[in-house]
Amino acid sequence: MGGSGYVGGELLRLLVCHPACELQTVTSQRYAGEPLYRAHPNLRGLSALRFQEPNIEAVVASSDLVFTALPHGESIKIVPDLLQRGLKVVDLTADFRLKDPSAYKEYYGFEHQRPELLQKSVYGLPELHRAEIQGSQLIAVPGCMATAAILGLAPPVSDGFIDAGRIVVDVKIGSSGAGVNPTIASHHSEHSDGVRPYKVTGHRHIAEVEQELTGVGHGDFVKVAFTPHAVNMVRGILATAHAFTRGNPTERDVWKSYRARYGSEPFIRMVSDKKGLYGLPNPKVTVGTNFCDIGFEVDTHIQRLVTFTALDNLTKGAAGQAVQCFNIMTGVNEQTGLNAPGLHP
Amino acid sequence: MGGSGYVGGELLRLLVCHPACELQTVTSQRYAGEPLYRAHPNLRGLSALRFQEPNIEAVVASSDLVFTALPHGESIKIVPDLLQRGLKVVDLTADFRLKDPSAYKEYYGFEHQRPELLQKSVYGLPELHRAEIQGSQLIAVPGCMATAAILGLAPPVSDGFIDAGRIVVDVKIGSSGAGVNPTIASHHSEHSDGVRPYKVTGHRHIAEVEQELTGVGHGDFVKVAFTPHAVNMVRGILATAHAFTRGNPTERDVWKSYRARYGSEPFIRMVSDKKGLYGLPNPKVTVGTNFCDIGFEVDTHIQRLVTFTALDNLTKGAAGQAVQCFNIMTGVNEQTGLNAPGLHP
Amino acid sequence: MGGSGYVGGELLRLLVCHPACELQTVTSQRYAGEPLYRAHPNLRGLSALRFQEPNIEAVVASSDLVFTALPHGESIKIVPDLLQRGLKVVDLTADFRLKDPSAYKEYYGFEHQRPELLQKSVYGLPELHRAEIQGSQLIAVPGCMATAAILGLAPPVSDGFIDAGRIVVDVKIGSSGAGVNPTIASHHSEHSDGVRPYKVTGHRHIAEVEQELTGVGHGDFVKVAFTPHAVNMVRGILATAHAFTRGNPTERDVWKSYRARYGSEPFIRMVSDKKGLYGLPNPKVTVGTNFCDIGFEVDTHIQRLVTFTALDNLTKGAAGQAVQCFNIMTGVNEQTGLNAPGLHP
Amino acid sequence: MGGSGYVGGELLRLLVCHPACELQTVTSQRYAGEPLYRAHPNLRGLSALRFQEPNIEAVVASSDLVFTALPHGESIKIVPDLLQRGLKVVDLTADFRLKDPSAYKEYYGFEHQRPELLQKSVYGLPELHRAEIQGSQLIAVPGCMATAAILGLAPPVSDGFIDAGRIVVDVKIGSSGAGVNPTIASHHSEHSDGVRPYKVTGHRHIAEVEQELTGVGHGDFVKVAFTPHAVNMVRGILATAHAFTRGNPTERDVWKSYRARYGSEPFIRMVSDKKGLYGLPNPKVTVGTNFCDIGFEVDTHIQRLVTFTALDNLTKGAAGQAVQCFNIMTGVNEQTGLNAPGLHP
Repeated sequence: MGGSGYVGGELLRLLVCHPACELQTVTSQRYAGEPLYRAHPNLRGLSALRFQEPNIEAVVASSDLVFTALPHGESIKIVPDLLQRGLKVVDLTADFRLKDPSAYKEYYGFEHQRPELLQKSVYGLPELHRAEIQGSQLIAVPGCMATAAILGLAPPVSDGFIDAGRIVVDVKIGSSGAGVNPTIASHHSEHSDGVRPYKVTGHRHIAEVEQELTGVGHGDFVKVAFTPHAVNMVRGILATAHAFTRGNPTERDVWKSYRARYGSEPFIRMVSDKKGLYGLPNPKVTVGTNFCDIGFEVDTHIQRLVTFTALDNLTKGAAGQAVQCFNIMTGVNEQTGLNAPGLHP
Repeated sequence: MGGSGYVGGELLRLLVCHPACELQTVTSQRYAGEPLYRAHPNLRGLSALRFQEPNIEAVVASSDLVFTALPHGESIKIVPDLLQRGLKVVDLTADFRLKDPSAYKEYYGFEHQRPELLQKSVYGLPELHRAEIQGSQLIAVPGCMATAAILGLAPPVSDGFIDAGRIVVDVKIGSSGAGVNPTIASHHSEHSDGVRPYKVTGHRHIAEVEQELTGVGHGDFVKVAFTPHAVNMVRGILATAHAFTRGNPTERDVWKSYRARYGSEPFIRMVSDKKGLYGLPNPKVTVGTNFCDIGFEVDTHIQRLVTFTALDNLTKGAAGQAVQCFNIMTGVNEQTGLNAPGLHP
Repeated sequence: MGGSGYVGGELLRLLVCHPACELQTVTSQRYAGEPLYRAHPNLRGLSALRFQEPNIEAVVASSDLVFTALPHGESIKIVPDLLQRGLKVVDLTADFRLKDPSAYKEYYGFEHQRPELLQKSVYGLPELHRAEIQGSQLIAVPGCMATAAILGLAPPVSDGFIDAGRIVVDVKIGSSGAGVNPTIASHHSEHSDGVRPYKVTGHRHIAEVEQELTGVGHGDFVKVAFTPHAVNMVRGILATAHAFTRGNPTERDVWKSYRARYGSEPFIRMVSDKKGLYGLPNPKVTVGTNFCDIGFEVDTHIQRLVTFTALDNLTKGAAGQAVQCFNIMTGVNEQTGLNAPGLHP
Repeated sequence: MGGSGYVGGELLRLLVCHPACELQTVTSQRYAGEPLYRAHPNLRGLSALRFQEPNIEAVVASSDLVFTALPHGESIKIVPDLLQRGLKVVDLTADFRLKDPSAYKEYYGFEHQRPELLQKSVYGLPELHRAEIQGSQLIAVPGCMATAAILGLAPPVSDGFIDAGRIVVDVKIGSSGAGVNPTIASHHSEHSDGVRPYKVTGHRHIAEVEQELTGVGHGDFVKVAFTPHAVNMVRGILATAHAFTRGNPTERDVWKSYRARYGSEPFIRMVSDKKGLYGLPNPKVTVGTNFCDIGFEVDTHIQRLVTFTALDNLTKGAAGQAVQCFNIMTGVNEQTGLNAPGLHP
């Protein structure tokens, strides 16, 4: 539901050739009746489906599981109904990500009407919640920048290597993160050739990042100084985290920490070679893939751990992660439909 | 052989997950001993292979078929040997594309040493030479801009709709077409934000385009006024052909011409909707795919047929086309390993 | 009047430090009351002016000359009034460019209400109409792509070197040509990394180009096959003209033709070195300047003259040309306020 | 001396129309004998000078003041000689920026041979050292990223608002910062559409930043956690500084701090509107200008001051700052030759 935006399009790209998914219904108010390729020109010749008017009955009649790629605040109006009728839901909005209902007031400006669902939903980050995802009926797919920040920081936070109260997360993100609707901010003439800081304090993803990192930590409430910047690329996020170390961890200690947690993760690649042009993560290399590339350096000049996390905001940052959750829920190999290499150059 | 450049990397991207290909040996003088991901960071985690020193004996011992992605003029030194030892070769240089040996002198500046192989090789454009490709031992994969120009023009030339002596082909191409070696022309600060015409007369691809279009025509020698422009993108070609019509073909006539020739082609998409943002071909939508998108308009103001052909210079313009030929040669479904959708946005 | 768009902003950039202009009033409905830098952030710290509501009386009271940078079709509602009250007008719309009233019906879809003004207005291309501009009360500043096409082709058309009935003009233009209002076509995620042909037949600038080139020709009605492409840059036009030659002009003949016409033009640079990376025109080098760079090659393979014309669509293609006309009208040195070098890189 | 690189070119752009400078000699080994426009195509038609072989005698004979835009480590070989012969020198390398000779060993890997000149040279940042610049014979123009970091942080450091031992500086910089020589890192196909962290610890500019910020502080040695990222633009730097506050300064306190120090600075613009698309600094708006735009926000969630500093790395980050110093040294208005508005869009 909500298939005409960029996240919806990315889901469709992954699902049209996914062997364990039979696409039944794709809804869009704006494009109802039109072929998918009208909104997603990359799907021309690859799917004969057309967008349909959103209609819960039709969806329920045809489907076992629904992906909801709606604007924030819209899922909460529909999802309870879908759940009650026994469907599973993988929701790509923020509506079920936060466990603390009051955080919705603070970060999203609305009173959450179904707080009991916040306890039922699972935060869809397989690297932290795989077991819970498996049995869940409602997955809240994480925010794109939150995914990058959490995955990059979970090991050192969990192992107590950094001062959890003073973590800086400086994010660089491409224009597709702003969605399909044209605005002056994403106007090509304005967006090109610049770096634009926005929502430099109080960004909504802070709530998710602090919730999840506090969850893997040791009792301290984790706090992040979080600032995104819109840069001149279409897809991709690089989250640079600057954290001050505790107890002088060596580079080897940090390597062990990442390996211990991510050693068998199918979509996390450690990129910390210090050799070659791509010796540290660069979102360019993750475009179109579900990979999350992580690298780091220990800065002895100032007792800092600096980490770099790169991913594609539409894939591992949204639709790819949703499909990864879907794979876990349905019991197929977790990499199904997600194993094509990215492009270079 | 020659696996560390952009075309070699694109081949590897397509072959590492190709079900009918077992990659044995990848050679590179420069990267010998290094993992593939050192040259192609997108392959990190997807292949455990390492580059090897180029060694014909080792290649012959391990392989049935060789892709050669070498500099122009290098294949001719190696390929005869490979052929004699019974291997099949899919060559990505220009060394075996032209049937007329004297054209090498004119366009490439060297005397072709093995003119008999020019009769043996097949020009690897499946849409024109599928049957010959099937039984061939030596495929000469077409040039990237030549592929675009030929595929866009073959139907109207073949059906006699245009003045074959005055065809203008104005090409826009991304920076990856210039290859992996840094030069001032491809320096980011110079290449960005500009449009740079280069080799504006006498470009080498003219020879291929005229050879192939003359081949589908009706006796007239086809001549093209061909000029490429380097534009600010990485992958992609848009070839705009401006041709003056003969006999006042209608739009419907032209549609029929394209449908007759390409109606069952798996990688040609007619994109001529006149509706929506992607109603005509745009190379952006073909990036990473083997699609060739073709559209056109009939200009009654000046008796012109203008055609647009978009493709990814590294995929349908090189490595993807090579794999398509490989699929035909080996008898598997022609789309094997080439059916992933492109990205949008 | 109409100072908040990209053309208005470029005018203000040039006028805030123009020694012969005292900026009195800048109008904008949308930004009335706001400082100029709200719409044009480059002017922060450089002008204390604020936008005012459009008000003819106020404009007339304060000014001798008005630049109108309004949407097409809006100038015609205001300009007659300004003229009647004795003001001079430099109009940046298309409303007074065409001499033939019926062309407005054909190309702009409206019946021109003041056809007598079409005879009074001067087409503001100094290289063709300098003397008329000097004494005129109403200047119609040419379209950006039309400027490039006309300046590149006027000498060879005028000297009869090319077949005037079959001229191809293939234009590459940056996103700023589409103006300040966000649309899906100029959305960064859609526009980046692509080449998008648009209005591929019947573009409005054809009317101007044919009018002016016919004017410099020898009786033949000049016809152009004109197709623009939106490319991934912000400012700049490269117009590539492919023309078929008559009488086998040599390269030297063509050089003489350009030199004869443009030898003392302050804003035309011949760029036809065949040496170095910038041996032919590239719009990158003209950004922010009033230069029009022209180069060419004679193609003996197919009896073609290919010419390249590069300029900044907002400067020589609009506001800079308007200021050049203003300089001519007011009798100051024609280069006043227009002589800053462009940037490299 | 050293006029063919990007910094040299930017100097020439500013000096060819500078009313207080008479350009005598421009040296370049590589381009000796060629016109300036061969290296700097923007200067075509604007200067008749040609590059000359570097020759100290010729320079001394013709000039009163020399700008040296050489590779790091080359100035030290030439400058002492120039100084001894009574010339003034504005040096754009790092050779005379650091006061502590041992820092050259640590950050640049060489033993400084003329440590006495480090005491004589003045760090050419007018906002901190205007009076000293006025009477100096040797100016060491600051590094581009250092300029951004220092100007953004000097007021809050000076006023004791932040923890000086834990300042994070996260820099985004365009490709021109890497200079004119092509490398794989600046290859268009590699650099485009990505974000590449580099020299993520131990960057050379740290030495300058800590030297100058310690100089304006209150005895504490200032330490910075400094990490640059190469982003997809040609010119421009955005330095984002994340600092933890001391004593809970309010937004008003911080505003007062900046105003007190920079209130009459001609090239510093406070951009902290929280309104409109350009309400915080964006390097896009500073391209080609000598402006340094500064903005900030106080983050009460985590007691952080986040500051943003945008400038053009080639102008205020190098050549523009050099000309500003030259203006101060020669007693002309400090804005001479530096007052053209930037472009938008």
